[in-house]
Amino acid sequence: MTIAHNPLRDPRDKRLPRVAGPCVLVLFGVTGDLSRKKLLPAIYDLANRGLLPPGFSLVGFARRAWEHEDFRQIAYDSVKQYARTPFREDVWRHLAEGIHFVPGEFSDPGAFEALAMALKELDQTRGTGGNYAFYLSIPPKFFPQVVEQLQAAGLAERSAGSWRRVVIEKPFGHDLASAIELNDTVHRVFPEESIFRIDHYLGKETVQNILALRFANEMFEPIWNRSYVDHVQITMAEDIGIGGRAGYYDGIGAARDVIQNHLLQLLALTAMEPPTSFSAEAVRAEKAKVLSAVRIPGDLALATARGQYAAGWQGGVKVRGYLEEEGIPADSRTETYAAVKLEIGNRRWAGVPFYLRTGKRLSRRVTEVAVLFQRAPHLPFSETDTEELGQNALVIRVQPDEGITVRFGSKVPGSSMEVRDVNMDFAYGESFTESSPEAYERLLLDVLIGDPPLFPRQEEVELSWRILDPVVEYWAGQPTIDQYKSGGYGPDSADELMARDGRAWRRL
Amino acid sequence: MTIAHNPLRDPRDKRLPRVAGPCVLVLFGVTGDLSRKKLLPAIYDLANRGLLPPGFSLVGFARRAWEHEDFRQIAYDSVKQYARTPFREDVWRHLAEGIHFVPGEFSDPGAFEALAMALKELDQTRGTGGNYAFYLSIPPKFFPQVVEQLQAAGLAERSAGSWRRVVIEKPFGHDLASAIELNDTVHRVFPEESIFRIDHYLGKETVQNILALRFANEMFEPIWNRSYVDHVQITMAEDIGIGGRAGYYDGIGAARDVIQNHLLQLLALTAMEPPTSFSAEAVRAEKAKVLSAVRIPGDLALATARGQYAAGWQGGVKVRGYLEEEGIPADSRTETYAAVKLEIGNRRWAGVPFYLRTGKRLSRRVTEVAVLFQRAPHLPFSETDTEELGQNALVIRVQPDEGITVRFGSKVPGSSMEVRDVNMDFAYGESFTESSPEAYERLLLDVLIGDPPLFPRQEEVELSWRILDPVVEYWAGQPTIDQYKSGGYGPDSADELMARDGRAWRRL
Repeated sequence: MTIAHNPLRDPRDKRLPRVAGPCVLVLFGVTGDLSRKKLLPAIYDLANRGLLPPGFSLVGFARRAWEHEDFRQIAYDSVKQYARTPFREDVWRHLAEGIHFVPGEFSDPGAFEALAMALKELDQTRGTGGNYAFYLSIPPKFFPQVVEQLQAAGLAERSAGSWRRVVIEKPFGHDLASAIELNDTVHRVFPEESIFRIDHYLGKETVQNILALRFANEMFEPIWNRSYVDHVQITMAEDIGIGGRAGYYDGIGAARDVIQNHLLQLLALTAMEPPTSFSAEAVRAEKAKVLSAVRIPGDLALATARGQYAAGWQGGVKVRGYLEEEGIPADSRTETYAAVKLEIGNRRWAGVPFYLRTGKRLSRRVTEVAVLFQRAPHLPFSETDTEELGQNALVIRVQPDEGITVRFGSKVPGSSMEVRDVNMDFAYGESFTESSPEAYERLLLDVLIGDPPLFPRQEEVELSWRILDPVVEYWAGQPTIDQYKSGGYGPDSADELMARDGRAWRRL
Repeated sequence: MTIAHNPLRDPRDKRLPRVAGPCVLVLFGVTGDLSRKKLLPAIYDLANRGLLPPGFSLVGFARRAWEHEDFRQIAYDSVKQYARTPFREDVWRHLAEGIHFVPGEFSDPGAFEALAMALKELDQTRGTGGNYAFYLSIPPKFFPQVVEQLQAAGLAERSAGSWRRVVIEKPFGHDLASAIELNDTVHRVFPEESIFRIDHYLGKETVQNILALRFANEMFEPIWNRSYVDHVQITMAEDIGIGGRAGYYDGIGAARDVIQNHLLQLLALTAMEPPTSFSAEAVRAEKAKVLSAVRIPGDLALATARGQYAAGWQGGVKVRGYLEEEGIPADSRTETYAAVKLEIGNRRWAGVPFYLRTGKRLSRRVTEVAVLFQRAPHLPFSETDTEELGQNALVIRVQPDEGITVRFGSKVPGSSMEVRDVNMDFAYGESFTESSPEAYERLLLDVLIGDPPLFPRQEEVELSWRILDPVVEYWAGQPTIDQYKSGGYGPDSADELMARDGRAWRRL
């Protein structure tokens, strides 16, 4: 099953795929959506690509009276419905042999002892060598309990030559203080190098390609600075509302849910200095450096904007406003749209604003990083011939329609010398026969291999909260919040934020 | 018929089209291929686009016993077969009313007197106002005779408020001395500002777009210099042989036929400094400046290559070698392929080679300017992961498949951080609803309007010969010439020229 045995592989090919060694993945929260839609399918896809070791084992832990077979059936259904790669009976059968289930409450020490026994048995029957990854796909309030139970059951200490890792999902706290507290809890049991914080955006091919684009090429880096860049816009727009997540979402809001992690990580990758290598240490150090230089310029009232979606029409369907959603208090002031203007106080970016925005129930779903360049300093054309000429732009389309667009001015055919904006396009789908793995495939494999560059370390989490805390505090002090029409482009205050700088958001 | 009367036009649109004023176009050489396939259709297309004045008249002059009706029929057939825009009966009828023919020999003063009378009559009947453009679509050896006859018939002197222009086609001489002599001949009768030298490549949309690309944008100019560019390749490859042009081609060869005009003009547009405006004076001055800085580095034997096509296969058809072509002496040493390495001795380009190549019977037809950038100075990737990574390239596709391609490195989906070259593409045909006019439409209109930026002036012609004369002289002293297979990529010596510099031609 490992690629090393693949007879189709040219043995002269030096690019050996990164294959996980013997190990067990223990999944807490197997009854949740993430597990069913993303994690279980991703595990199958990794197996199908030959990237998991022969004895790989998956142990589910939950408060359910399931037998192994029940969990296998859950996993089977989820793989059949959500896996990216084609279903192959032999791959599934091989994988299913390693799937086990341990029932239990997080509060029950006995359940964790049973887990420890099950793992020991797997080490003996399937040669997993005492290497365990604990994936906590559970609400953060259970983290302390679970990590303590793992410790009590002896599961946090590794024996010589083996490893123990713990994977946690955002939110990494809801402000700086809680993030530090959460971290302390996990750190009491696991050392920093064993903690893998998942921001699934960083597993996206298009996000990783930001580094390739910037540093594997010679064309872009020379203009990637304040001498040529006018400003940067980082957008994550959703067309959906909060769905069934009222309990989680209210009191959190768009800034904490999206800007603190996804958008600030995109900013860090876009703005950071070239790392000497792609080692975890080098990449994370550059990200931390640039995040620590981020400032909110001037008055918070002028540099931020937020809103709540009001009722409206979306895709031909009438939709409720945020305050009418089930489970949301009628007087909630939680924002579903957030925009913030940032500056980076370093030599490369001084004076170049980075505008970040995210929102729900906007006109369409799109995540992109747009670098907008200054206008050409002098146009040897007549004024009337360049009326339709905007700024050059390089747009990294993170999702959907993954790729890169460069907007530039080109002569209009048949005119004397009239210039108009056109697009040059690169689409992932057209240029590579390889289909893009899901973010969770990449990140799960990195966890099992122990390759941490794509996982934010605690320092980055804290720096991000340091940027955002004043914003959410300022907003908390405001008595009212703007409304914006569902299916539209966000609140007027966000447009005004840009207009004050003589700029405009890219059209969604 | 003029666009000013177009009721569909928004009167607030400040971009008035450039429309020719009252005038007559006199065409010498109406029986030739150029006239039939390009000039007559282009005149119709201009009329169809509403860019010719109501009384516009076309007078053909040739050694044929034709009536006006015969020439109209020739023009009609040619328009029907070759015009770019759809045939509209009313446009044709209007145009045909102004089509006249004057029969005569170039040696017959009476014929030119008849021409003068015909033109005077047109001024009276069609209001052409004494504005005449004489298009000499004839072999250069007849230029002296024709311009002298024009002068003798009083056709070279303009009366107050009217203009006289003369249009000549390449070749502008076959070396510096003959170019100066030819120019003196024409200058004795017409002042420099009345002489329009046509290099039809400069009328191509994609060639004019080089200036728009460079100077209407902010992204490209900062990297358009020796700090970032490794070298430039300018290619005009043809898949055809010499066809029926043996008499013209032998003794001329690829360097004089293509490099002296088309390729050196492409080099000038690619390499010149930004002009303050697109006025004829500003653009031509910059082109002359950069051409005067062009040098052939080192030994001519090492900086040039040439060859003759040998027999071979092209598009599934067996084709003859150059020496077997009808009308070519068996011992001809005329080159059908020429390559030359040039350098530009100025601050922007010092040390950046410009490689120019042109040839017949190559594997495919393509004209392009490729700017190849230096490799990224440091790759934070592992070596094995960047094996397939070439240099960044910006390629201006002049023809066919007009557009721009940027080649850059992108992450391979599913890999850890493997980077591979991909293309980002802009295609004229997809981005503009306007279809591209033929080069001759643009250039003929420029002649009638009197707008000369796209016409090389004598200084540029002489500078180009100054660059090329040593090359053709050196080749003339060589006893042998390389052969290359028809349907291939040119002679080995051309590949060796590049290989000596550690480079390779872009694949045709």
